[in-house]
Amino acid sequence: MKRWLNPNAVSFSHALPDITSSKRTPREFLERCLEVTAAREKSVKAFVTLNAAGARKAADAATKRYKVGKPLSPVDGMPVGIKDIIATADMPTQMNCPAFKGWQSGQDAACVAALRQGGAVIIGKTVTTEFAIGYSGPTTNPFDPARTPGGSSSGSAAAVGAGMVPAALGTQTQASTLRPASYCGTVGFKPTIGALHTAGVHPLSATCDHLGVLAGTLQDAWRVASHISLTIGSPGNPFLTGAGAEPPPARKPRKLIRLYTRGWTEIDSDTGDAFEETVAALASAGVAIASRDNDPVVARLEQELDDGVDGALAIVAYEMKWPYEDYIARFGSVIGERIHGLIERARKMSPVDYETLLANRTRVQELVRAAAAGADGCITLAASGPAILGHEYTGSRTFLVYGSWLGLPAFSLPLMQVNGLPLGVQLIGTPGTDGALCAVANWMMQNLD
Amino acid sequence: MKRWLNPNAVSFSHALPDITSSKRTPREFLERCLEVTAAREKSVKAFVTLNAAGARKAADAATKRYKVGKPLSPVDGMPVGIKDIIATADMPTQMNCPAFKGWQSGQDAACVAALRQGGAVIIGKTVTTEFAIGYSGPTTNPFDPARTPGGSSSGSAAAVGAGMVPAALGTQTQASTLRPASYCGTVGFKPTIGALHTAGVHPLSATCDHLGVLAGTLQDAWRVASHISLTIGSPGNPFLTGAGAEPPPARKPRKLIRLYTRGWTEIDSDTGDAFEETVAALASAGVAIASRDNDPVVARLEQELDDGVDGALAIVAYEMKWPYEDYIARFGSVIGERIHGLIERARKMSPVDYETLLANRTRVQELVRAAAAGADGCITLAASGPAILGHEYTGSRTFLVYGSWLGLPAFSLPLMQVNGLPLGVQLIGTPGTDGALCAVANWMMQNLD
Repeated sequence: MKRWLNPNAVSFSHALPDITSSKRTPREFLERCLEVTAAREKSVKAFVTLNAAGARKAADAATKRYKVGKPLSPVDGMPVGIKDIIATADMPTQMNCPAFKGWQSGQDAACVAALRQGGAVIIGKTVTTEFAIGYSGPTTNPFDPARTPGGSSSGSAAAVGAGMVPAALGTQTQASTLRPASYCGTVGFKPTIGALHTAGVHPLSATCDHLGVLAGTLQDAWRVASHISLTIGSPGNPFLTGAGAEPPPARKPRKLIRLYTRGWTEIDSDTGDAFEETVAALASAGVAIASRDNDPVVARLEQELDDGVDGALAIVAYEMKWPYEDYIARFGSVIGERIHGLIERARKMSPVDYETLLANRTRVQELVRAAAAGADGCITLAASGPAILGHEYTGSRTFLVYGSWLGLPAFSLPLMQVNGLPLGVQLIGTPGTDGALCAVANWMMQNLD
Repeated sequence: MKRWLNPNAVSFSHALPDITSSKRTPREFLERCLEVTAAREKSVKAFVTLNAAGARKAADAATKRYKVGKPLSPVDGMPVGIKDIIATADMPTQMNCPAFKGWQSGQDAACVAALRQGGAVIIGKTVTTEFAIGYSGPTTNPFDPARTPGGSSSGSAAAVGAGMVPAALGTQTQASTLRPASYCGTVGFKPTIGALHTAGVHPLSATCDHLGVLAGTLQDAWRVASHISLTIGSPGNPFLTGAGAEPPPARKPRKLIRLYTRGWTEIDSDTGDAFEETVAALASAGVAIASRDNDPVVARLEQELDDGVDGALAIVAYEMKWPYEDYIARFGSVIGERIHGLIERARKMSPVDYETLLANRTRVQELVRAAAAGADGCITLAASGPAILGHEYTGSRTFLVYGSWLGLPAFSLPLMQVNGLPLGVQLIGTPGTDGALCAVANWMMQNLD
């Protein structure tokens, strides 16, 4: 396979030995990030708000701590961008909605509070699509400004892809972390539903809203997610399994399930070829590949996934009733048409409709657990191809909805390229297996080329 | 038994035939509420904010709808008070914390949005203890101003007990709806955890925070809870079972489990006598009473409840890390000592400690389900006696923590009196049996005297 290598990628984890030994300071690391941002931002438009002064102050404080050998945490001094639906005490949270222009939450979301408590450098707010589901923002793809960066975590993915920051927070309710990760050549990580605290993240759908991380390296993605989990927990949920400063050691998977779900009808032959080469590389490394062609359990699983997945958006729509019915009543056509349409859909649903969708999801979740028990994960594409031309449409979500609907942990690994543009391999696990899945991701990042 | 009868209680449900037939208007109903409020508020101090103008406007709109026979919902025109940790778009939400003086949420909590959408008359914000867990507010007991109304839903209970409103929203994380209901002689209803949407309710502990209703009659409590559930749902949860405009028809229980958990060591003999009379009245009506004395399953259940219940506050403390660590960092000693202490406790807990508490809770929840399977509910006291003298201490939570910890639906029924003061019977069910439990509550309200 022809592996994608991001010429821009920066890694805080890779710089950390130099920072720890005071060869390089967090302030210097930040200044390099700010230089790249200054050079690329005019074209990429990743940030809604950039807080260089606040970031410098935080980086200087981190610098002092490293000098005396007392960093606060594994993210101390690490610059992180924050998607603009996530509340920050020191910057507005604007949801890419004119009704929230300049809106101040007055406090940090739980995840931001955890990062700040650990000394992370909150560099700015990144562009989101409207409420993470409606109109697109101005961000362009860092590898071709004529293309979308994907959405809804558009700015977070583009900032990381362009090398402006080592990591940024995103969210995923349908496809919003892993699709832009794939389009922008970054690692995307969406932990098991509930593994990361989502208080202070503007809601779409409480049972599908995942906090996600976009990063230049797997190390940085894991570092950020682990720190948030270990610092703040998540009410009612176990912690991120395997959480720690470093990813779990690379572990070669014995068996991976290759999914042929609905999205495969959308792809072109170059995309298909790139994925086949990846599968071939895995097989030649000795990984058993199960698929519907050789395993009836997988065939049944795929059938259930495709039969049920349309219910995902109905669940999201129903859970959007609050606060979006209220927003529509107050702000009318300021709220995008897509959101109006989803609320119309929700209004037609009865309590029984919603409860039936929940019950079916629980049933499919149990099926996934059983079907995937003997494998180390499922692999599929993270998008239906490389970033598409244009900026309003942020790309197909087909490959990604399954994991969001069912709350499964998933990575997009920037391993492939098609026509010189990045494309992600999606690695999906079962709930609570984030650590084991990361060990497999770690192996794939080290061994596929 | 000597039944308590609240001389003040007002009921919207009872007035509804007159309102529907236009003998009486919602505006007239509201004016009566405002008169009582004007007469009693100086002593009771139930409200932080009273929005008489907004309430009159809403009541007039409801009056017009009833005149043309088109009420919006079963709560159209019903005056409701809102605990001041629940967000309202038209009034500040102040949490009884000086740091939030005048704070405007900018939007309605999901439950308030649902009430407003149904035409309910949001009359004002009621006094809460600090963040529903810290310092007490100025509210006094409507039956003796020298006594506490209970907390943390102090103002909601006192306003209903004084007859200022037919119903008010409260919350319960440990004891905060049913204890003040007992002290103020109102019906208190805390549905199954998650049955009512809690977005926009300022959080303590996401897995223990229940939305509750305090009302002069069971009918009004059920009407409010049902309307909120059916209008807005609750993400990931089934709807309130049996939800509808009227409570499920009275159903005589076959068997009730009488709990002798830890609180019984706290009570005095008058309180004990009042409860024994209630049990005797149930038994003489033909209800089988199971207890640890005649049923080893109940004995084991009580043991598990008492062995595990101290974990309840540890869960609350851990889940308070966000946003209270941040509040303490920003507001210091403005935040009450109790909250400082809980956060200190949380900081000493490891992820394993928290996960162990969750796992134990799940185990006890399953035990409750199994142990209670053959019964129609559990009965115990809703408080360790009538309202105590003084205003800072809002009373023991011992009898109430079990249901909050385990997310069980529970009512406080104002059936008893001790020394001329009200005292509630607590009726507890298993998760999701709210409708069946309400049918039993309905029977008890009609048949015990």
